[in-house]
Amino acid sequence: MQNMAERVLAGDRRALARAITLVESSRADHRAQATLLLEDLKCAGRQAQRIGLSGTPGVGKSTFIEAFGCMLTAQGLRVAVLAVDPSSARSGGSILGDKTRMERLSRDPRAFIRPSPSQSQLGGVARRTREAIALCEAAGFDVVLIETVGVGQSETMVAEMADLFLLLLAPASGDELQGVKRGIMEMADIILVNKADGELKATATRTCADYAGALRLLRKRPQDPEGFPKALTVSALEEAGLEKAWAEMQALADWRRDHGHWGRRRAEQARHWFEAEVRDALLARLDREPVKGLLLSLAAQVERGEISTTAAAEEAQRLLDVQMHG
Amino acid sequence: MQNMAERVLAGDRRALARAITLVESSRADHRAQATLLLEDLKCAGRQAQRIGLSGTPGVGKSTFIEAFGCMLTAQGLRVAVLAVDPSSARSGGSILGDKTRMERLSRDPRAFIRPSPSQSQLGGVARRTREAIALCEAAGFDVVLIETVGVGQSETMVAEMADLFLLLLAPASGDELQGVKRGIMEMADIILVNKADGELKATATRTCADYAGALRLLRKRPQDPEGFPKALTVSALEEAGLEKAWAEMQALADWRRDHGHWGRRRAEQARHWFEAEVRDALLARLDREPVKGLLLSLAAQVERGEISTTAAAEEAQRLLDVQMHG
Repeated sequence: MQNMAERVLAGDRRALARAITLVESSRADHRAQATLLLEDLKCAGRQAQRIGLSGTPGVGKSTFIEAFGCMLTAQGLRVAVLAVDPSSARSGGSILGDKTRMERLSRDPRAFIRPSPSQSQLGGVARRTREAIALCEAAGFDVVLIETVGVGQSETMVAEMADLFLLLLAPASGDELQGVKRGIMEMADIILVNKADGELKATATRTCADYAGALRLLRKRPQDPEGFPKALTVSALEEAGLEKAWAEMQALADWRRDHGHWGRRRAEQARHWFEAEVRDALLARLDREPVKGLLLSLAAQVERGEISTTAAAEEAQRLLDVQMHG
Repeated sequence: MQNMAERVLAGDRRALARAITLVESSRADHRAQATLLLEDLKCAGRQAQRIGLSGTPGVGKSTFIEAFGCMLTAQGLRVAVLAVDPSSARSGGSILGDKTRMERLSRDPRAFIRPSPSQSQLGGVARRTREAIALCEAAGFDVVLIETVGVGQSETMVAEMADLFLLLLAPASGDELQGVKRGIMEMADIILVNKADGELKATATRTCADYAGALRLLRKRPQDPEGFPKALTVSALEEAGLEKAWAEMQALADWRRDHGHWGRRRAEQARHWFEAEVRDALLARLDREPVKGLLLSLAAQVERGEISTTAAAEEAQRLLDVQMHG
């Protein structure tokens, strides 16, 4: 483990990949090793800029990450890309193709791309992703991009572990604009309207203005300087608008650092995930024998009407008191 | 307690009201008494028809319940009305006015109306409402109407404790029809388009046809006979269509009883609530001292970055193991 920690700290991508595999494991001995590793690496105190990125399929997410990532590495920055796709267990790993779709970035020695593990439980995905972010930070990456498809609660989850949250959208008619849920809009720091090129350029500009208008209608958040959240057009295909977008992200990040919002947000996020993890771990005890079997038997009695729900639930708590020490 | 149980079983409305107050209490001694009372009453094996009713404010819910309830009591049936409003804690008890708005029904000796307790936690609302339903059943009511405003998850909760779920809607233009969330539509057994009177009669008929069309597009559920779920028009104001609606509810209920769906659904619901209650009670342990204080102190360390989230969460589980026996 000491060796692995040293190699991760030295920025060794193969060691980083193995460390991520370790934190993705649910085996008890692996979990114990992962905890030690994370504690070890924490001491380095390295922080990357964590950027969450959400966008539905077809919006050009891979092309954007490829172009944006290559622009950053060309500036000498080290970029890690993590994918979060709670649906990948079902859809059969659509993210598996990421490395192929991001051919240039995946061959870049300053970049590291990690596909989403096939995993259906959102709670598990959250913990693994957070730990993977921590590993990438320890490995000295300057930017960690956490991308997610807009499915269920994955956007909220990613926003809760990112410093900045980007929403990548396609050019659209006014009617479609309303398809973006208000809750998602409220999480965005910067909206990027992609495909501002060729025939769609004018539509993209109009869409961007529409979203800018919609953003102005939202309640002002304390963590935003004047003019944020904002909407910008980009063309991942023509690699246009990417530097401007990065400059805006930096301006926002700098302002938040200067005004104490950056550290406060990280602290709040850490607390949020700690509390979520404590709850998840507590509930996981219900799935362990002998508790699991005893609860199943009580549930069967409830189903047959032999005991009231209330009395059964109280009996279950008594059983938990006795059995939890296992 | 024995006395209270006997009086509830005898249909004494004052004893019923006091019993509901008892199950609404969170005091430990009251909880113990409530559990005993519920076990006692369970033996009577009485079952009412549990009807869930949802509708947004302005749709005429109180007027409908008043007219529908009075029609049932006129037939000799005993009707209990329970209100579920998770928002009432904030809105300051809007349901408090129910008895005034249902003046005729509230004076009816065959009726019992219970306003929503002011309570903000949905988990607590669920347990209290289920227990209040059980008390009303023991008190010999034939029909228990559980009404809720369409706020957040309260509709799902009510549908999960009802035998039949009604959705009360207002006449609307085609555009507004889409405002009803698909998930809510899928829970409905019967959609009632209210206000089919006066100027709105034609619109109500058209709206009803629209909803009927929308219902036909939904996936067929095993618990539905041919023609269900269905949409009907009613006028609570003119007391029109109520008998037809009741006849349809009876037809649906009879079919489900004959085909084993009724009992199966009750068994599944009981199991669902048992499991939910076990989880809630387990999580409630995190809020009890000394665990609460120890977790707060760990959370503060996490916020200050003195310990990793992962390590803190594991430490929390160790503390829980030691402290849970209290």
